[in-house]
Amino acid sequence: MTASRTQFDWRDFSVPALPPLLRAAMDCFVEHGYHGTAIRTVAGRAGLSVPGLYHHYPSKQALLVGIAESAMADLHARSTAALAEAGDDVEDRFALLVECLVLVHAYRWEHAFIAASEIRSLDAPARAGHIAARDRQQKLLDDVVAEGARLGRFGTAHPKDASRAVTTMCTGVAQWYRTGGPLSPEELAVRYVQICRGAVGAP
Amino acid sequence: MTASRTQFDWRDFSVPALPPLLRAAMDCFVEHGYHGTAIRTVAGRAGLSVPGLYHHYPSKQALLVGIAESAMADLHARSTAALAEAGDDVEDRFALLVECLVLVHAYRWEHAFIAASEIRSLDAPARAGHIAARDRQQKLLDDVVAEGARLGRFGTAHPKDASRAVTTMCTGVAQWYRTGGPLSPEELAVRYVQICRGAVGAP
Repeated sequence: MTASRTQFDWRDFSVPALPPLLRAAMDCFVEHGYHGTAIRTVAGRAGLSVPGLYHHYPSKQALLVGIAESAMADLHARSTAALAEAGDDVEDRFALLVECLVLVHAYRWEHAFIAASEIRSLDAPARAGHIAARDRQQKLLDDVVAEGARLGRFGTAHPKDASRAVTTMCTGVAQWYRTGGPLSPEELAVRYVQICRGAVGAP
Repeated sequence: MTASRTQFDWRDFSVPALPPLLRAAMDCFVEHGYHGTAIRTVAGRAGLSVPGLYHHYPSKQALLVGIAESAMADLHARSTAALAEAGDDVEDRFALLVECLVLVHAYRWEHAFIAASEIRSLDAPARAGHIAARDRQQKLLDDVVAEGARLGRFGTAHPKDASRAVTTMCTGVAQWYRTGGPLSPEELAVRYVQICRGAVGAP
């Protein structure tokens, strides 16, 4: 009981999200699309031969599945850590979850782009798994907004719609935000908490 | 001065947005991606030979450009018609522009999907043109939100961020909404006007 384990810091984006091979594949998919990417291009970018790459991932599909699963797992782990930090108060839970969504989509926009644009390229079982992960993720926010509405803390008459709108607003950050602009991801997150509170009818 | 010309009804989505050839290309791109689509697949879907298709569009790129330009032109025409209908009041202008954005992205989600996922596949000049069209579109809402903030009708401290958040919320409808669900596009638009008013701090 002397030293606790190092806590997972959901605000820390200094650690690479993906192992180098998946990173190389993601960069290729972002630039050329899944179908426009040849496996030898990924191998070359990762400094491997094609057989060397296949030793780790048996197919291009396996690379896409690896990226999609890592992205959703990372988002979910950060989100549950944010909710744990927030504690019981529904407005705190909402604020930290929105902050988390904005940070992830500002820092890791490529993941979101792949998730949004290449779901069609996942084989049926992987696609079902991805949709289940997305639903599980959405439910975190749905529950918070529903509770806020039930308690009268959020004035929205349509908590489910408002929750989805908040999600698309925050994931939409990945479409336009790039680091190096006038606002840091953290500053942007502060503004989004305000905007999103308005969207659910918080005072 | 007896009969006026038929007005363009920005709420009417009964007319196909694209000529059949571009529609066939868009369906292929949605299913398989731009790079995953062979020109003969588009030709087959449109009931043409490959030379027959090339007679109308000299390349696959020309098809993508045609889709992107049609989508942005349609969105802009509907948006300016909505603003014209709204008149001078800033809250009316905001409400009708949000309604328009939601309707377009609910009825024409494939256009938005292509615009979001295949910009990378446009050649440089077409990409620059698309970005200019997107900026021009965004400015319509930016101006309305800025005016509302200036007049004190919208409480937001960050009108530009709020405007972008509203845009991504409304365009995000294309990611999840499909006709045939519990809400019609028109019913969804009513809810989104409320949610988006909250996002900009309207009472």
